[in-house]
Amino acid sequence: MEITEVHKACFEAGIKFGSLYHQFAGTPVSPASMDSLATAIEESIQNQPFCKSVSVGIDEEKLPTNGYTELTGKFLHVEIIIEYENTEVIAQMEMQNGYPKMELISITT
Amino acid sequence: MEITEVHKACFEAGIKFGSLYHQFAGTPVSPASMDSLATAIEESIQNQPFCKSVSVGIDEEKLPTNGYTELTGKFLHVEIIIEYENTEVIAQMEMQNGYPKMELISITT
Amino acid sequence: MEITEVHKACFEAGIKFGSLYHQFAGTPVSPASMDSLATAIEESIQNQPFCKSVSVGIDEEKLPTNGYTELTGKFLHVEIIIEYENTEVIAQMEMQNGYPKMELISITT
Amino acid sequence: MEITEVHKACFEAGIKFGSLYHQFAGTPVSPASMDSLATAIEESIQNQPFCKSVSVGIDEEKLPTNGYTELTGKFLHVEIIIEYENTEVIAQMEMQNGYPKMELISITT
Repeated sequence: MEITEVHKACFEAGIKFGSLYHQFAGTPVSPASMDSLATAIEESIQNQPFCKSVSVGIDEEKLPTNGYTELTGKFLHVEIIIEYENTEVIAQMEMQNGYPKMELISITT
Repeated sequence: MEITEVHKACFEAGIKFGSLYHQFAGTPVSPASMDSLATAIEESIQNQPFCKSVSVGIDEEKLPTNGYTELTGKFLHVEIIIEYENTEVIAQMEMQNGYPKMELISITT
Repeated sequence: MEITEVHKACFEAGIKFGSLYHQFAGTPVSPASMDSLATAIEESIQNQPFCKSVSVGIDEEKLPTNGYTELTGKFLHVEIIIEYENTEVIAQMEMQNGYPKMELISITT
Repeated sequence: MEITEVHKACFEAGIKFGSLYHQFAGTPVSPASMDSLATAIEESIQNQPFCKSVSVGIDEEKLPTNGYTELTGKFLHVEIIIEYENTEVIAQMEMQNGYPKMELISITT
């Protein structure tokens, strides 16, 4: 099958999710540090090519009220918008069955 | 546009490349340790869903002959084959213009 | 207080534990891939200066029998021996109160 | 040799440097995103036990003016102060001979 810009846009969306997750999983995080971490994740991944926007939410209610924990998918909500030539792909991450599920939400050409 | 299994297969291929790169970038590597690292990268990423095969080569000629360095894209050749329902996607990584370029090679349905 | 080689040896031991943990936390791991991962962790950290030996055990009984999980401290037992000039430091990591506790075990001069 | 609180303070200082470096090495960084990344590194590592302060500088002059690069030691200046019982340890990181050199600066009891 011919490889189109839509395929490439979906591939790029996947790259950003894998990068984001495996770069930052394991980072020490607490209610006091979650905002700076979310901002740094957004701004660092936005450096990557074709990345129109990155929104990261960290779920404060799941963090320990005393002390800290390590960042994993269960604390994260992520939406990434890829713009590849004339294609826009929106993808999200949320927890499903104990794994962080990364999913295509829409493709617009 | 309707999201098809081909789109999802391309997205999954991207996830594996981003994961592989950002999990292992920065690992201390030398000629003596490159083989165990390449094997561990292959076997760990193959755990991820829809991953039919992962081949990792580390370029010994670029490594320091004395001492060690940190793993980055310039030492890596990677091929990943994704099997998502009836779609097979082959993707590769190589250096282009100083960045590790991840690329779709073929899509077969 | 004057900084001695014993102090430097303890500092080096800490560096290796922090490196090991934060480089590899988040790696996908299963019973099938745990051996190659443990070997790669040992051989990669041994590249670092003053590292006489690194032993990594992954606790198979805690891993899922189906599927995979992400490597965290709860699966790991680590012993590192540092040799800094005439000082040998042995340090270990095990879980305590839900955190991976890294600890000096002995210092020999 | 008996293990003292000074030894433990030096060990803890090492842990923080290894953690910081291997958690964040490989993060995409540009002049536009360097400030949020430096803040997130400081605040995340400060979550770790015995960490009195963490100061991270990223060397803007070494970053590409167009595009981005991956964070490595050559862009980083780090100072960490550990407070372990009655001991204060100051340690720093800077480049020496192409490796990021982490070093004890002072120990006060």
